[in-house]
Amino acid sequence: MVDNIDQLYADIQRGNENTIAKAISMVEDGTKDAVKLMKKVYRNIEPAYLVGISGPPGSGKSTITQSIVQLWRKENIKVAIIAIDPTSHFSGGALLGDRIRMDKISTDQGVFIRSMATRGSLGGLNSSIYDTVLIFSLAGFEYIIIETVGVGQNEIDIVKLADTTIFVTVPEAGDEIQAYKAGLMEVGDIFVVNKADRPKSKQMVLTIEQLVSFREDKNIWMPPVLATNALKEEGITDIKKRINDHHIYLQENDLLQKNRREVIRAQMINLMEKKLNEKYISPILKDQKFFKHIELICKKKEDPYSVVNELLLL
Amino acid sequence: MVDNIDQLYADIQRGNENTIAKAISMVEDGTKDAVKLMKKVYRNIEPAYLVGISGPPGSGKSTITQSIVQLWRKENIKVAIIAIDPTSHFSGGALLGDRIRMDKISTDQGVFIRSMATRGSLGGLNSSIYDTVLIFSLAGFEYIIIETVGVGQNEIDIVKLADTTIFVTVPEAGDEIQAYKAGLMEVGDIFVVNKADRPKSKQMVLTIEQLVSFREDKNIWMPPVLATNALKEEGITDIKKRINDHHIYLQENDLLQKNRREVIRAQMINLMEKKLNEKYISPILKDQKFFKHIELICKKKEDPYSVVNELLLL
Repeated sequence: MVDNIDQLYADIQRGNENTIAKAISMVEDGTKDAVKLMKKVYRNIEPAYLVGISGPPGSGKSTITQSIVQLWRKENIKVAIIAIDPTSHFSGGALLGDRIRMDKISTDQGVFIRSMATRGSLGGLNSSIYDTVLIFSLAGFEYIIIETVGVGQNEIDIVKLADTTIFVTVPEAGDEIQAYKAGLMEVGDIFVVNKADRPKSKQMVLTIEQLVSFREDKNIWMPPVLATNALKEEGITDIKKRINDHHIYLQENDLLQKNRREVIRAQMINLMEKKLNEKYISPILKDQKFFKHIELICKKKEDPYSVVNELLLL
Repeated sequence: MVDNIDQLYADIQRGNENTIAKAISMVEDGTKDAVKLMKKVYRNIEPAYLVGISGPPGSGKSTITQSIVQLWRKENIKVAIIAIDPTSHFSGGALLGDRIRMDKISTDQGVFIRSMATRGSLGGLNSSIYDTVLIFSLAGFEYIIIETVGVGQNEIDIVKLADTTIFVTVPEAGDEIQAYKAGLMEVGDIFVVNKADRPKSKQMVLTIEQLVSFREDKNIWMPPVLATNALKEEGITDIKKRINDHHIYLQENDLLQKNRREVIRAQMINLMEKKLNEKYISPILKDQKFFKHIELICKKKEDPYSVVNELLLL
């Protein structure tokens, strides 16, 4: 229990690292205090600028993230990083990985790195991700980066929270069809072909430029396709510049508010699903009756459709 | 409307392609007839052997799938392929892609290829995927392959449906840490390092072997790590053999039934979430009041936690 939500709020606002970490854990655990805290945060805080970075494993997202953060740090801008991982039974692996790979910024006081799971404990998109964004905003971080490792539908939904989404790929990520299928393509505001010293790099840039040109909104923001070599820190200033361009574009076209509305909508759906799960599904899963039904379905004496209606009393 | 569910059932059982396609669409649309059909299917049909193939984009999953299917076809075994894609606004792209890439089997009468979305229309894992598996089983397909393109949590859940899961990667998919993070590693029964003519191939095999050796169940089934070159059809017979080995292993240890129970459990949770969404969330999303609340939250006059409780009357 927390004695005083206002004190907690003030400590976060002061940038106290331990309090920030504690608040995020509270939100993840869904405590009553977390709800009280978040009610206050939602009613007081404007979210910081949110950048999503996504792409297939091994494309160099973490190296790019680290290099961009270093550029911002030179301007004394505080940055928080939320590293999203598919929840893994190999516990601890994710966090460890980030720490190793972001060694140039992990000890910087102006940088806060937090690993979070894709899903909440009850399934569904992890609603604490956006709450964490707001906690970081309260703590005075000016940029927040959400990095997703996976390339699935959940990951698309997570980067959709962002104001600017960067999609990173590599020259050999696959032929045209593979790129077309990647799904994340449609949400990118900036595309990066990393490891551009490799063969097929120019071809990949052209492929993406062509895919992007099919977009309906092409006469508005035309996503740039940048070639970088993150390990040599080549092309990073260009990414930083394009984030800035996109930020200005959003501001000038009143799109920041539009994005915010969509995020709030998604967040509310998440919260509703969570509430319904807690109230209706969780008790069923703990009930011995549920296991008996599964056995009967396996023996073909019942079927899931009939049983579900019965269990939910619908 | 369908006049007669028994007729539909019989036509599927006879392997009529148009009826199979129609039944899958009915299930995807969640019609009342689909529920009637599925009740009968669940109470009568044992699922065919289910193989999951997953891995990052560009790793060669489709080429491998095609080659394995060709081997089975030589033995006159009927195979169905469910290609799972992150739902894309670039409509049609996914299906088109599969058709092009599986050109060697797409005209074969003994092969049925169907693209499906990761999510159902109301969010949540697409519960019609497993229903489709059962429809294919009814239609006499002996092997069913589920191929996922993404590498996220949803995709892990989908391949978990499978009896044997194959995880395909490429030599340069990333250093040890990246592999560790891939998340899908933990669910693989067979690992394939494709494009093994490239440098770092042996290193990648060793890395995966090492990761797999940390598994708790290592004294039971030790997942083989195979090096293949799918474009040259090298190593495919080995994959086929290992699928067979794993199948025998599951049978001899009574694990097929255990897997089935877990699938039924997951499927029931999916169905319950779907029902709850339909009953409670869908009407809210259509209500003008919902948009007003979003506006008020954006103006910081309300917060999602309070509003959600009010909307759900909880």
